[in-house]
Amino acid sequence: MKIIIVGATGTMGKHLTSVFEADHEVIRVASKGGDVKTDITSGKSIENLFKQVGSFDALISTAGPTYVGPWKKMTEQDFRKGLEGKLMGQINLVLIGQHYINPKGSFTLITGALTDEPQLNFANASAANGGVEAFVRAAAIELENGIRINAVSPTVIEDSPQYFPYFPGEIPTTMVELEYAFRKSIFGAHSGQVIKTY
Amino acid sequence: MKIIIVGATGTMGKHLTSVFEADHEVIRVASKGGDVKTDITSGKSIENLFKQVGSFDALISTAGPTYVGPWKKMTEQDFRKGLEGKLMGQINLVLIGQHYINPKGSFTLITGALTDEPQLNFANASAANGGVEAFVRAAAIELENGIRINAVSPTVIEDSPQYFPYFPGEIPTTMVELEYAFRKSIFGAHSGQVIKTY
Repeated sequence: MKIIIVGATGTMGKHLTSVFEADHEVIRVASKGGDVKTDITSGKSIENLFKQVGSFDALISTAGPTYVGPWKKMTEQDFRKGLEGKLMGQINLVLIGQHYINPKGSFTLITGALTDEPQLNFANASAANGGVEAFVRAAAIELENGIRINAVSPTVIEDSPQYFPYFPGEIPTTMVELEYAFRKSIFGAHSGQVIKTY
Repeated sequence: MKIIIVGATGTMGKHLTSVFEADHEVIRVASKGGDVKTDITSGKSIENLFKQVGSFDALISTAGPTYVGPWKKMTEQDFRKGLEGKLMGQINLVLIGQHYINPKGSFTLITGALTDEPQLNFANASAANGGVEAFVRAAAIELENGIRINAVSPTVIEDSPQYFPYFPGEIPTTMVELEYAFRKSIFGAHSGQVIKTY
């Protein structure tokens, strides 16, 4: 299977790359490094990615730039970080990628527990997650040729301990749990689902 | 109570204006007509609105421009209609309005059943709704001075029969049900809730 991993050089992307490249052709996409350099906040850059990579069987995204900071001082400009990154960026991967994906292929986007379980300082990520999850449900009923779409929703990640203090009482998602959620989406038959690891 | 109704000249806004102005001071805000002309896709225009109106007790939004059309041909440009309108526009009403609202005041935004129950052609509205609902939950835990925020989520509206064919099997939300959902948010004690009429 030809699998595109967007955000391949991040904490999640590195783990997913290492496990999937054992059995599959993996194309590592990142803003820096990787096999193909792509800025997911630019539609043009995403179009170039697909032109370069051609047809594929699965696209995984772990790319989710968002703004972290107190809500009270948050401005529209701050808020646009997640709007252009985790929300529009990931949606654009699907809007454009649908014209390149093989029949029976799958898209798997990243969201997170913040959709339903907010934490202080993360309102921007909550909004981006909520938008992506509703989009996934809506896109699933319009995709044709057996193409599927899901979201994986972890809580704070085992390998990102610097975020633990922001998520009091949250039992971290292990890297293996995260990997298995992606496996469920890529190799299962679900569509329009939010696969939670918590 | 001083109540700002954004989208006051639309189908929902007209009904809400007529019922609330019996007992309250209502400021009607719309892109055309109304007491204050405001373009909710512009942060500057929203800032001007609040400078003009000053402090207030409740803000209701029924303003939700989104793109309607088949997903397969949808472009980033189409998608931005809902992103800038129903999503960023409504969120900006809160990000900026928080500096003008009275203690114990409330914000009530509009979403819709499409968050969880997608329909063909409405993926843009689904994404905008999902973003707004997650934002409402996140903002609720950061607002201070007893200020509350909720979303009202109707399905297709009784007074918009032109949309009925797009919502097969949906029992329309009556104007009175819609009004009561807003009453629950404005006069109740809830915060961070999505008040569904279906």
